[in-house]
Amino acid sequence: MPQEYINNLQTPALLLNKNILERNCQAMQQRISSFGILLRPHMKTAKSIDIYRIATKTGFGGITVSTLTEADYFVTNGVTDILYAVGIVPDKLRQVAEIISKGADLTLITDNESVISALNKSARELDLELKMLIEIDSGGCRGGVLADSEDLIALGRAIQQASNIEFSGVMTHAGHSYHCRSTDKIVSIAEQERVCVVDAAHRLQSELGLTSQIISTGSTPTATYAESFSGLTDARPGVYMFGDIDQYFIGSCQLEDIAITVLTTVIGHNKNANRVLIDAGGLALSKDISATEFSNHTGYGWVADLSGKVIDGLYVESVHQEHGLIASSDGPVLNFDRYPVGTKLRILPIHACMTVAAYEHYHVHNNQNNVIDQWSRVNRW
Amino acid sequence: MPQEYINNLQTPALLLNKNILERNCQAMQQRISSFGILLRPHMKTAKSIDIYRIATKTGFGGITVSTLTEADYFVTNGVTDILYAVGIVPDKLRQVAEIISKGADLTLITDNESVISALNKSARELDLELKMLIEIDSGGCRGGVLADSEDLIALGRAIQQASNIEFSGVMTHAGHSYHCRSTDKIVSIAEQERVCVVDAAHRLQSELGLTSQIISTGSTPTATYAESFSGLTDARPGVYMFGDIDQYFIGSCQLEDIAITVLTTVIGHNKNANRVLIDAGGLALSKDISATEFSNHTGYGWVADLSGKVIDGLYVESVHQEHGLIASSDGPVLNFDRYPVGTKLRILPIHACMTVAAYEHYHVHNNQNNVIDQWSRVNRW
Repeated sequence: MPQEYINNLQTPALLLNKNILERNCQAMQQRISSFGILLRPHMKTAKSIDIYRIATKTGFGGITVSTLTEADYFVTNGVTDILYAVGIVPDKLRQVAEIISKGADLTLITDNESVISALNKSARELDLELKMLIEIDSGGCRGGVLADSEDLIALGRAIQQASNIEFSGVMTHAGHSYHCRSTDKIVSIAEQERVCVVDAAHRLQSELGLTSQIISTGSTPTATYAESFSGLTDARPGVYMFGDIDQYFIGSCQLEDIAITVLTTVIGHNKNANRVLIDAGGLALSKDISATEFSNHTGYGWVADLSGKVIDGLYVESVHQEHGLIASSDGPVLNFDRYPVGTKLRILPIHACMTVAAYEHYHVHNNQNNVIDQWSRVNRW
Repeated sequence: MPQEYINNLQTPALLLNKNILERNCQAMQQRISSFGILLRPHMKTAKSIDIYRIATKTGFGGITVSTLTEADYFVTNGVTDILYAVGIVPDKLRQVAEIISKGADLTLITDNESVISALNKSARELDLELKMLIEIDSGGCRGGVLADSEDLIALGRAIQQASNIEFSGVMTHAGHSYHCRSTDKIVSIAEQERVCVVDAAHRLQSELGLTSQIISTGSTPTATYAESFSGLTDARPGVYMFGDIDQYFIGSCQLEDIAITVLTTVIGHNKNANRVLIDAGGLALSKDISATEFSNHTGYGWVADLSGKVIDGLYVESVHQEHGLIASSDGPVLNFDRYPVGTKLRILPIHACMTVAAYEHYHVHNNQNNVIDQWSRVNRW
């Protein structure tokens, strides 16, 4: 496509700075490989084969996905080693069979003994041999069994006895690292994440003789700051590719590492309410307000000018479906003359995974803000 | 398509009960027409030509839209009278020209005097005659000028003097009605909404001689409870077609009027955290938590069984990208045996406009939960 300046795009539009993306991906690849384990990037954030190629540029090629639709897309695009990191249910095995028939070496996860017999029955009917990881709860309190629980052994035994399910290892996600306010705390959670999953693998080995081929952790904060990956085979961070305001407050990135912005246009002034209106609202930015736990002045995103320079003190204070309202955190009356109707601005996302999901493609630009490519995403289910 | 039971759909999936939709649309058409004004439904929620036909079944045919992409879709599907109810900017006039060239009788809005000359210049270059409403702020503090302000007259005068912009009237949206907790309060805001926009029209007539062909208000709570529509030409509610938990707390609908649910599957149990995991997370439900202002136990949605019957006390307490965590508002340990992995549940949305935007189509079903159709949506920009 011909190069054009980002200013010419219809708004709202999703911008991706390729230079920053490449830098973020390179840094994580270097860091993880320096510990001697594999980076198995979580593609739930980027959902793009073009970004996959950058994220796996210097080695390995296995990935993590959050939907079977992603798995299908990636295997269709030639990626075979895929971990589907959401608990599997019997009704989804037909879709799994289709993905495997396309050449995927697909690994699934579960945390529930009671579903194993139904999974095995379906797998047998579909003539499938399922590779299965056990999900461990390392403190995130989402999915998973506890590493020291009886449930772990009961689940391991159920898998061991299932004719069409092969035990492949253990995995966990330290989601609670997203609430950290210091590097020390992240380091401590990373160690907890590592120890839980390594301990679980040891117990399964010693009590049941089950050998874990995969022992996997994964979150951007813990992958960024963990001091040890000892005993692990791979790490599965995802949002590190893009960064966002939430990761900035957690400490996983700097503002200049944020590769994603939403291009928007000033569509009005509400002088009465002291707000500048933009055409990026709840759908264009998402309604994620995760960073509110760190600051009262994050709202739905921070504001940058067209060049990408952050404008101190401005943030998207509230959103309607297609309207965003920019306020000043300092409280004074906004200088409306500085933002006439028609002005283009760029919003730094609070939570990149949620924001980018509203778009079908990325407008890829360079540091000079020239649009150099357009990459598509695989959304939905 | 062959009829099938909703249970056979892959999850997460968006369900739409056609019987409820028809009842909601009929009720609003009857109510608004009984006051002698037009219902110009806001299609920003439904974004579907099939739903348009139901919403306009007994008369009129004009609509409101929230994006120019919606306008393009609807004119392509034969709808001509379209109000684009988001402030227009000069850069969007090329898209406007294309929509008009397809046969649309398109009306735009603005609240900003300073943009009129740039709009007029672009319109002249594109050989367009723009129909323009002035947006009034009736207390919602989003877009709009105040009805009693000098800005109103200055803006009216600027439009009057613009060669290629025709003044068409005034409109407002009482967004603050979404925070009401009583019918009395909604009635009072509806009256404020009506008076503001009628007053603005009177001032523009008496001070500038500008005649308003359209004098329009619009929100589901005020359209549902207003006691007078005197002086108005049309009303623009949107979410009344579907209803949601937020509208239930506001009082605009009953639980049995909610036409939209998200079909989901139990994918795990976290007994340690006392949560049932489902495969509908932040992307499938949206991260809208509007109803939290009314109740601590709404989260990201209420839970119903596969038949659609609400399960008292259960709600989606938290979400990750593809995981939802169901908790009990009563506090006791969940009866996990009642929700084995693989169980199908249905989630009632907090804010339907945001939830349905994650899907490309509706699985349309009847009261017997048979899937009878599939309708597509026009998403994005």
